[in-house]
Amino acid sequence: MSTTVSPLAPTHVPDMPRIAGVRLATAEAGIRYKNRTDVLLALFDKGTAVAGVFTKSKCPSAAVDWCRAKLKGGEARALVVNSGNANAFTGKSGKQSTALTATIAAKAADTTPAKIFLASTGVIGEPLDATKFDGVLDSLVQDAAPDGWHNAARAIMTTDTFPKVATATVKIGKTEVHINGMAKGAGMIAPDMATMLSFIFTDAPISAGVLQSLLKSGVEDTFNAVTIDGDTSTSDTLLAFATGAAAANGAPKITRAADPRLKAFTKAFYGVLADLAEQVARDGEGARKLIEIIVDGATSKKSARKIAMSIANSPLVKTAAAGEDANWGRVVMAVGKAGEPADRDKLSISFNGIRVATKGARDPSYNEAEVSALMKQPKIQIKVSLGLGKGTDRVLTCDLTKEYVAINGDYRS
Amino acid sequence: MSTTVSPLAPTHVPDMPRIAGVRLATAEAGIRYKNRTDVLLALFDKGTAVAGVFTKSKCPSAAVDWCRAKLKGGEARALVVNSGNANAFTGKSGKQSTALTATIAAKAADTTPAKIFLASTGVIGEPLDATKFDGVLDSLVQDAAPDGWHNAARAIMTTDTFPKVATATVKIGKTEVHINGMAKGAGMIAPDMATMLSFIFTDAPISAGVLQSLLKSGVEDTFNAVTIDGDTSTSDTLLAFATGAAAANGAPKITRAADPRLKAFTKAFYGVLADLAEQVARDGEGARKLIEIIVDGATSKKSARKIAMSIANSPLVKTAAAGEDANWGRVVMAVGKAGEPADRDKLSISFNGIRVATKGARDPSYNEAEVSALMKQPKIQIKVSLGLGKGTDRVLTCDLTKEYVAINGDYRS
Repeated sequence: MSTTVSPLAPTHVPDMPRIAGVRLATAEAGIRYKNRTDVLLALFDKGTAVAGVFTKSKCPSAAVDWCRAKLKGGEARALVVNSGNANAFTGKSGKQSTALTATIAAKAADTTPAKIFLASTGVIGEPLDATKFDGVLDSLVQDAAPDGWHNAARAIMTTDTFPKVATATVKIGKTEVHINGMAKGAGMIAPDMATMLSFIFTDAPISAGVLQSLLKSGVEDTFNAVTIDGDTSTSDTLLAFATGAAAANGAPKITRAADPRLKAFTKAFYGVLADLAEQVARDGEGARKLIEIIVDGATSKKSARKIAMSIANSPLVKTAAAGEDANWGRVVMAVGKAGEPADRDKLSISFNGIRVATKGARDPSYNEAEVSALMKQPKIQIKVSLGLGKGTDRVLTCDLTKEYVAINGDYRS
Repeated sequence: MSTTVSPLAPTHVPDMPRIAGVRLATAEAGIRYKNRTDVLLALFDKGTAVAGVFTKSKCPSAAVDWCRAKLKGGEARALVVNSGNANAFTGKSGKQSTALTATIAAKAADTTPAKIFLASTGVIGEPLDATKFDGVLDSLVQDAAPDGWHNAARAIMTTDTFPKVATATVKIGKTEVHINGMAKGAGMIAPDMATMLSFIFTDAPISAGVLQSLLKSGVEDTFNAVTIDGDTSTSDTLLAFATGAAAANGAPKITRAADPRLKAFTKAFYGVLADLAEQVARDGEGARKLIEIIVDGATSKKSARKIAMSIANSPLVKTAAAGEDANWGRVVMAVGKAGEPADRDKLSISFNGIRVATKGARDPSYNEAEVSALMKQPKIQIKVSLGLGKGTDRVLTCDLTKEYVAINGDYRS
């Protein structure tokens, strides 16, 4: 955890409403960090639906394995998250550790281990001593309260410089429902399913199946469209919990993804995901610039995504942004190496709305001083128009600075 | 061009023999740099066979387009290389510039433009003023001499900190033949065909077709197995020239790739490519560690390559190496994100011969102090055993340091 907050941190932090059916508590279990909270417990009322998407890593963490298996039940009674240790690549002991944690949590929360969901983040390969949760979880159950969302987001941080929360309030039918979300992640971010850890909570009465389909489509242009360093974590976990408590106020129960009453909710839900995903990019390790890459005119959306990611993950594009250099030659390089259809002589490139290259060469009206001035802004938009088709996409990333190297060369994360 | 030579530079620089049929000259054309040579001319005797492999970038430079088209003729009379300007993404003017350069060179060398080969390296997107070659090329033709190989390698450098040459002498039949090579490249290195620029010269009497097949197979485990930053250049060019002059000493003419008399030559030729490729990794921008990644037990060589490249291009693995941290958790991450078959519970990882992880967990005999001491060496070998099949591969890269960020954040390259 850094003591210096990212200069790209949001200036406004929202108040977080209560979510009926959800109670939170945090504690210091001393897993790795000193003098800070490192365990989060969320308790859910009976009947809470759960959905999740996870890393596509071939070497997922023990907690990811656990959640994947338990998701089939469709119901959650508690979520236990720890920071400081990812419980990844910990072999048999990792598996035992997840089972033991779930058993302790289930006992404390008076439920069965199959309804406990787990997430761990931190060092890979260190055995996680689950007995540290013993006792701590009992008092967490006692302490659990409907408030404390910011503290909860703080307890799951590793190299993050600020806690990430987002909220939305929207109607289903005539009843107001709330969506609260939190996320952590600053490095090893190239989610191929979700960011390292993110949790969404709502009181909307939505079935597990509908929640799952909302998550699956929602991550595509939010968490899956963010990259910090192209390194996909073994622990990526995005879980959503719907307590259904708003049914008591008259909210209709939604059991079909195509239900028209879900429209406003879906939009708000995606908005929360997008807000959290952007905050992850804004807290990229060492980041000083938020970079938005827009690709249009590609042969398909998929092709546009590949090209946008090739630009977003290029160390040369990212170091140029750090140096406030509108180096569009490196953007051409990154388009070229993506392996997707591109015609050099139809390519146009803009930085923050100023076209610097067109039809395969420097724009005749290119003015270095004008573009250089724009590059000093904290947000840089790189727009690439391929002129081939109708495929468009948008990806967020950040610059690559000496601080990224310092953070990751010095810290065993 | 840096004033500080990479600490990984070879301690021994070979003497370069003459190659009968090849003459070299360099000049200061003032294309971008001051007080250094930036143009290389190589002149070839009549009947010199030529072969080449190029970047797979969808946005190749004008010089790459030119060489690809002229390769069909199979004969070269001159090679003109300039540094300081890549003549890439320069539109119609780039095309005109290559044609004009070839015309000027052909006139000076008394041949046709179709037998002139061109390579350019440096800034992308700046128009290349070919008229700067006028006059310069005439005097280069006058000055051309059989010696000056080190000067030639120096004239093609950009951010390289040392000139890269390699040589081998071998027999075809009973006749000694020579192979000389040079390369440049320090950043934007993830050759998908060849490194930025490399040129191989031999007096062996080998047909253009045979030379092409030698090059194509030779790059696979040499230049294509090196990455510095995962960024593939628009200008990658590897050209080979065989003057055939050794035929006068009795060397047999080789016209079939399967000719058994080519065996020793093939080995020596691959050796020169491998030597140059390793020098490129040793001169990686800001590099302080040479990293060799060996993957075995993969389901195929192709799968092993993908996993090795995923490790080699991971910013987190590279920054850990810079920090002398044997962070095998990040190696697990990079294996996991490669998307290739991998079984967490069969995986073993070694650093410089010391096994740190086995069967999906930390090695029981792991000794942090012992491994940390090994990480201080200038060369780090990371070996990953997947335990699935017989696929093996080897890739070279370097660490990611603050200097890489400084070089690429400050320099418009």
